[in-house]
Amino acid sequence: MSEVRETVLELARSARQAARQMAATDGAAKQRALLRMVELLDEKENEVLKANAADLQAAKEAGLAGPKLGRLGLDGRTLADLKAGLRQVAAMPDPVGEISQMQTLANGLQVGRMRIPLGVIGFIYESRPGATVEAAALSLKAGNAIVLRGGKEALRSNTLLVELFQQALAEAGLPAAAVQLVPLSDRAAVLEMLKLDEYLDVIIPRGGEGLIRLVAENARMPVLYHAKGVNHLYVDEDADLEMALKIAHNGKVQRPGVCNALEAVLVHQDAAAELLPRLEAELTAAGVELRAHENALPYLKQARRASADDWGREFLDLILAVKVVAAMDEALNHIARYGSHHTEVIVTEDYARALRFLREVDASLVLVNASPRFNDGFQLGLGAEIGISTSKLHAYGPMGVRELTTTKFVGLGQGQVRG
Amino acid sequence: MSEVRETVLELARSARQAARQMAATDGAAKQRALLRMVELLDEKENEVLKANAADLQAAKEAGLAGPKLGRLGLDGRTLADLKAGLRQVAAMPDPVGEISQMQTLANGLQVGRMRIPLGVIGFIYESRPGATVEAAALSLKAGNAIVLRGGKEALRSNTLLVELFQQALAEAGLPAAAVQLVPLSDRAAVLEMLKLDEYLDVIIPRGGEGLIRLVAENARMPVLYHAKGVNHLYVDEDADLEMALKIAHNGKVQRPGVCNALEAVLVHQDAAAELLPRLEAELTAAGVELRAHENALPYLKQARRASADDWGREFLDLILAVKVVAAMDEALNHIARYGSHHTEVIVTEDYARALRFLREVDASLVLVNASPRFNDGFQLGLGAEIGISTSKLHAYGPMGVRELTTTKFVGLGQGQVRG
Repeated sequence: MSEVRETVLELARSARQAARQMAATDGAAKQRALLRMVELLDEKENEVLKANAADLQAAKEAGLAGPKLGRLGLDGRTLADLKAGLRQVAAMPDPVGEISQMQTLANGLQVGRMRIPLGVIGFIYESRPGATVEAAALSLKAGNAIVLRGGKEALRSNTLLVELFQQALAEAGLPAAAVQLVPLSDRAAVLEMLKLDEYLDVIIPRGGEGLIRLVAENARMPVLYHAKGVNHLYVDEDADLEMALKIAHNGKVQRPGVCNALEAVLVHQDAAAELLPRLEAELTAAGVELRAHENALPYLKQARRASADDWGREFLDLILAVKVVAAMDEALNHIARYGSHHTEVIVTEDYARALRFLREVDASLVLVNASPRFNDGFQLGLGAEIGISTSKLHAYGPMGVRELTTTKFVGLGQGQVRG
Repeated sequence: MSEVRETVLELARSARQAARQMAATDGAAKQRALLRMVELLDEKENEVLKANAADLQAAKEAGLAGPKLGRLGLDGRTLADLKAGLRQVAAMPDPVGEISQMQTLANGLQVGRMRIPLGVIGFIYESRPGATVEAAALSLKAGNAIVLRGGKEALRSNTLLVELFQQALAEAGLPAAAVQLVPLSDRAAVLEMLKLDEYLDVIIPRGGEGLIRLVAENARMPVLYHAKGVNHLYVDEDADLEMALKIAHNGKVQRPGVCNALEAVLVHQDAAAELLPRLEAELTAAGVELRAHENALPYLKQARRASADDWGREFLDLILAVKVVAAMDEALNHIARYGSHHTEVIVTEDYARALRFLREVDASLVLVNASPRFNDGFQLGLGAEIGISTSKLHAYGPMGVRELTTTKFVGLGQGQVRG
């Protein structure tokens, strides 16, 4: 057995053992561990920042720059946010053990569904030490064990953060092995994880398209992920145009490089003449380049003509595709063809069309009169998220504590047998 | 493109189109289609029985026998059961469109989860024409389209049943393409289905271990299935021994060849001397062979010693493994090691141990004082089932209408944007 395989296998095995203990633990111990982690982040703040500074230094020397370097960095404020998140997760009710849909069958057998942890989660993610704390906290609250494999640039930060988490677990009387870090930065370690379907119940990958594809194609266990966010705003004929402009601006400009940013606007033909010139003026002033379908060009001054592959494209940049549609049906067809099941928005004052859009559009979050940037676990009230799923099995949308659990059937009998 | 690929692709594509229509339809149309199918099964009963007789004849000539031949056959009674099932599914409330967990966030955005169909289901199953009707009915009720690929022996029966279903759909104003049959009996058609992740949202295989493995290893989309049912009965020190005997008998003898039958009994040492001789007498009389751990042999007259691979084995036959355990912990460890996450039973009168077993055992159905034979969608009140899942993602246990749906997030705003 290769050394890489041996290391990963050993981690996964001990995580599996810890998972059995975690599933049987009560909410109080989990809460203690989370609150102890808050204290440890306070007590060890200097050490954490020092380890992170070393990661940053090495990453800069290796040529890392821009948003990637930004995501790697921790400071007093990001640590304060992490601690606030830990407190929030600690305060949430324990999801495990909840019994729902209990009914008594004709033979007297009482049957319901009990919420239980998933088991062991494999989390493969980018170089963002905050994600280490968030993922471990959600996993712990849900009663799981987790095997973390973060980006190599964050290894020093992650090593210390996981040590602190393990200390918090141990002091709360929980198995330290419930949070594990794969200390190997080569891709071989990822490939080994994907083979361990006996020990890992699910893999959640987060990162670029290449990593996601690698995981989806090689994992022997179920995978929860989002591929990309090609998100549309449909501006209806009865839209409040001020609202539409505000949402388009927020969706495209506030953080263009993220998965819940806006990539295309579809405008009803009756709103085009009034909306499009103002959209162009406002977005161009914010540095956005418009790529317009030829049917939108007459309303625009500077926009270039969109090419065929601009539809369904995730620009992740200050670029926005624009098209005029004859009716809502055309918008729905466009979204069905080019959308990526992530986030879709209608702006309308019409009741029936609002409800129809809400019902018929197939996306993890469908919004009426709000910015697509809300597709985020914290924004939607889940406390935090470990990722967003755009596949429909198990979870569709942001994944928080509840999405890291499942239910089993339970039955309380008095000797019933089948006739 | 091969002819097989072309045929399967065309079916999947038209199912995908139908799925969009189905998702937008209301409950009344779906109910009309289901009730029309009941009428059609009445009107065309002779034709259905004739097609089935031809299938049976050909299967007999090809050497099919035993339970497989039994599953292939339809008669007036099985048709009556199918019609009763269709009426039950029709009478269930429409799951689609239900909004749950609606909350108003601090910014006034109202966020909830709306239940929606999964989309297109691929169902690959054995030669059992009843399953064709049940799967199509569940899929329809949940608002999905379904691509059916039944065993080759049932092709004549399935072809007619699917034609009737398509007629019922069309007469109810729904797309006939929402229920499709793959008319090809070679395995190449299965392999082609597994590649169509663009069109099929999930694959549900049902059948022998070979088929399940083929599907699990080759499918590009999520798969819901159960591998096997290695189900234990733990008889506690405080058990009602009459009840334990009754449940052991029902679990093992009533239908030994099915996945929810009993395969092993674990007896607390304090109950062994009284229970085991009676268990042997009763089960031997019913034709059951006991395979005993050496610690159980002293209590038994005729049992042979179990070999190492009798633990964790799905006998699917009148064979039962028996072991004495020193305490409940040993039973829990045995089940964690050898169980298959299908069905596990404790017989006890002790409150704390009943609850502990219920909570700690990781299986799709955990029962106190009832027969494992209840792990079945109809028995558990789901109306019917398309299969039983022993993997924890999305569904764990029998899969009925609800398990063929998912939820998306929906948000009702008044112009909210992110700050």
